[in-house]
Amino acid sequence: VAESADDIEAVRAANASFYTAFEACDAEAMASIWEHSDRASCTHPGAPTIHGWPDVDAAWRLILGAAGVTQFIITEERIEVVGDVGWVVAVENMIVNGASGAGSVVNWFVRAGQQWRVVGHHGAPISRPPIG
Amino acid sequence: VAESADDIEAVRAANASFYTAFEACDAEAMASIWEHSDRASCTHPGAPTIHGWPDVDAAWRLILGAAGVTQFIITEERIEVVGDVGWVVAVENMIVNGASGAGSVVNWFVRAGQQWRVVGHHGAPISRPPIG
Repeated sequence: VAESADDIEAVRAANASFYTAFEACDAEAMASIWEHSDRASCTHPGAPTIHGWPDVDAAWRLILGAAGVTQFIITEERIEVVGDVGWVVAVENMIVNGASGAGSVVNWFVRAGQQWRVVGHHGAPISRPPIG
Repeated sequence: VAESADDIEAVRAANASFYTAFEACDAEAMASIWEHSDRASCTHPGAPTIHGWPDVDAAWRLILGAAGVTQFIITEERIEVVGDVGWVVAVENMIVNGASGAGSVVNWFVRAGQQWRVVGHHGAPISRPPIG
């Protein structure tokens, strides 16, 4: 199945909604864009992976309830779609309560009807220079 | 497209081949299981993401040339397939020259004919307790 520009744009928009929900500390908005399934998984930087929507949701509620003022500037965004799966690899530049940091992220999505739902988030700190 | 047990097993085998190549420090074996494409991406723990097969390959050659004796014990492996995309979320328990550590990983694969090729690897250190 070839990628279409429409699919890429739809995944781009779904990914943007993820960061909009995070910046708004809005757990309901976050919940609305995730796939509520056993295969949903979420890896917050430095933490063990969380599996299954109920636990993923619970962690978001803790994180978003305590996050304070968070702003993301997403750079080096690469979006790919193969059939009903899309993924975004990017750099998350974060400003949290005035402190800044950067992480590498992959978010992946599965299409359900007209919606692309987040099925996985894997974030990691960037702490060393490029390899090579 | 429903998942088939055969597809899950094929992705499981492709993922195992990744760690076999790593443990053998065999850059040719590693190259043989990756998709050689612009969308190939690789995030080694702590490092910025590398994009595109030529740079991904170059980093593997540096890493595998210097890795020493590395053993992986993969735990909490979850494998999913949607159409021609598969992903594996797992814990990498590593022993490198006698020192041990753990990381969270997602590896993703795209089917090409009968082969599942690695198109993305995103590894991260586990450095803090579970959230919640």
